Amino acid sequence: MSDLPGSISINEEGPREGFQIESVPVSAANKLRLIDALGHTGVPSIQVCSFVSPQLVPGWADADEVMRLLVPQAGVRYTGLWFNQRGLDRALQFKDKLQLRGCIHVAASDAFCESNLNRTRAENLLAMRHQTKAHIDAGVVVNKVSVMAAFGCNFSGDVAPAVTLSAIEDALKIAQEHEAHIEELALADTMGWSNPRLTHELVCEVRNRWPEKSIRLHLHDTRGLGIANAFTALQLGVELYDTTVGGLGGCPFAKHEGAPGNIATEELVLLAEECGVDTGIDIDAIIAAGHLAESLIGRKLPSAVLRGGSLKSFRKPL
Amino acid sequence: MSDLPGSISINEEGPREGFQIESVPVSAANKLRLIDALGHTGVPSIQVCSFVSPQLVPGWADADEVMRLLVPQAGVRYTGLWFNQRGLDRALQFKDKLQLRGCIHVAASDAFCESNLNRTRAENLLAMRHQTKAHIDAGVVVNKVSVMAAFGCNFSGDVAPAVTLSAIEDALKIAQEHEAHIEELALADTMGWSNPRLTHELVCEVRNRWPEKSIRLHLHDTRGLGIANAFTALQLGVELYDTTVGGLGGCPFAKHEGAPGNIATEELVLLAEECGVDTGIDIDAIIAAGHLAESLIGRKLPSAVLRGGSLKSFRKPL
Repeated sequence: MSDLPGSISINEEGPREGFQIESVPVSAANKLRLIDALGHTGVPSIQVCSFVSPQLVPGWADADEVMRLLVPQAGVRYTGLWFNQRGLDRALQFKDKLQLRGCIHVAASDAFCESNLNRTRAENLLAMRHQTKAHIDAGVVVNKVSVMAAFGCNFSGDVAPAVTLSAIEDALKIAQEHEAHIEELALADTMGWSNPRLTHELVCEVRNRWPEKSIRLHLHDTRGLGIANAFTALQLGVELYDTTVGGLGGCPFAKHEGAPGNIATEELVLLAEECGVDTGIDIDAIIAAGHLAESLIGRKLPSAVLRGGSLKSFRKPL
Repeated sequence: MSDLPGSISINEEGPREGFQIESVPVSAANKLRLIDALGHTGVPSIQVCSFVSPQLVPGWADADEVMRLLVPQAGVRYTGLWFNQRGLDRALQFKDKLQLRGCIHVAASDAFCESNLNRTRAENLLAMRHQTKAHIDAGVVVNKVSVMAAFGCNFSGDVAPAVTLSAIEDALKIAQEHEAHIEELALADTMGWSNPRLTHELVCEVRNRWPEKSIRLHLHDTRGLGIANAFTALQLGVELYDTTVGGLGGCPFAKHEGAPGNIATEELVLLAEECGVDTGIDIDAIIAAGHLAESLIGRKLPSAVLRGGSLKSFRKPL
């Protein structure tokens, strides 16, 4: 237990991950209600929207409207997601509200790359070259690499750590060509393939190879092992995590219907705080935000903490 | 990762934990359908029923009928649960089918003892003295101690490891008085209070104090940390676990409505097998049993693996 970090930084992705997948439309006003509630929980960073194709992701067709109406709260970083020039242009309109930074997105599975980004691996690298240049030309720093399907893939099976490392190398090469300094390597278990042993192995291999870079974990809880994987990363001192309130999100694969999305913010907060790791997040406030999310989307979310509650109210006063 | 055991032994408690709490009545025939399906998964041990008061636990009023109809499968141990002489007498009728062994049940929280067993701590110890004697008189070995609320309690708050150790001492004293040799110490996180740090601490303290005894973990997933707690125990080499298929069961506390019950068998199987720890259980067979359980009780169970599926079908043939 001795290597647990003193604190971790949680990036809340519930609005972006969640509203892109719900079958019931959620109005911009209701999206903002959740974003505002999240902003009062102590979470330092919120990914609030996705600037992607409205045809492909109708749930975020109103990203621009949400951003126009959003009133930023002090001390909270707001971010968005995009994968191409059009998305970057939309994000740039809101550079007063959004913390813009460029990310080089790669996939450790060619099949997933084609399925999710509709590009072959080579086409994606070309697109990322253009996008990296476009960011730099627009004055947006590019300091992050994100690897999708870093732990396994429904389309191609197991992903060996060497393959994920190779995908990171591809991205770092693009960064080097554009003199972009990458500070952060994000490993995404996009389809819930990881387990604690693999998490341990990949985090160690990435850290040994690039010891000066920060590691971020973006874990999905598709098969219920997300919180055990997060704890494994905590034990290794990993400090950056993406989560979604209530476990919002999910997987668009038919075989996973009803599966949880990302690991739930409140479950990671409970795990960390109970183990003495500071998150800065008020557990009961984030639980309340989870219940609000449930009311907005009209279904129960998979988070156990939303049902079981925190331990606060059961603890006797000192 | 190096201390992971080569194999673990899972005791499936879905029938007993599950059918005692469901609001919709399940017929004896349907209980047997689940028990039979579980018997074909490779699970070595199934707790099939509860010989408790039909007034207090109407879901198990038909325990005797289920036992009469049960056709044991070779290689599977069937067990039951009871807390008094009447329960023991009922279990003794089925000693040809059930593996009978006595357990000294204690609680690490006086308040929980009164709430759950309707006895003060002193009254419970007296009852356990009588029950231990009754088991031995009936030729039933008493070789197990089980501690409820070993990690925390909704009625009295945090439970320090020293309090749980003291409860174990109470039980061991009773065993000693009756010359019963206790082989196994079961620690139950009855209300989902544990976290990996506390799990680590308590397992280490119990093992250091009684290094010759086996430790069993009975973990509830009330707040989503169950699988992380199980992994912590796996890392410590703990080999005995109670689980329920699909996460059957739950907590009767109003504030926990809809909370998961025990950790789901298929999630522990996935965790263990993916980490190279043998369980002897076929993951897809236990998932199928989970779906059967859902159809019998008429509601979705909390297990993520029931939604996300195993990794088997996504792995390409070698």
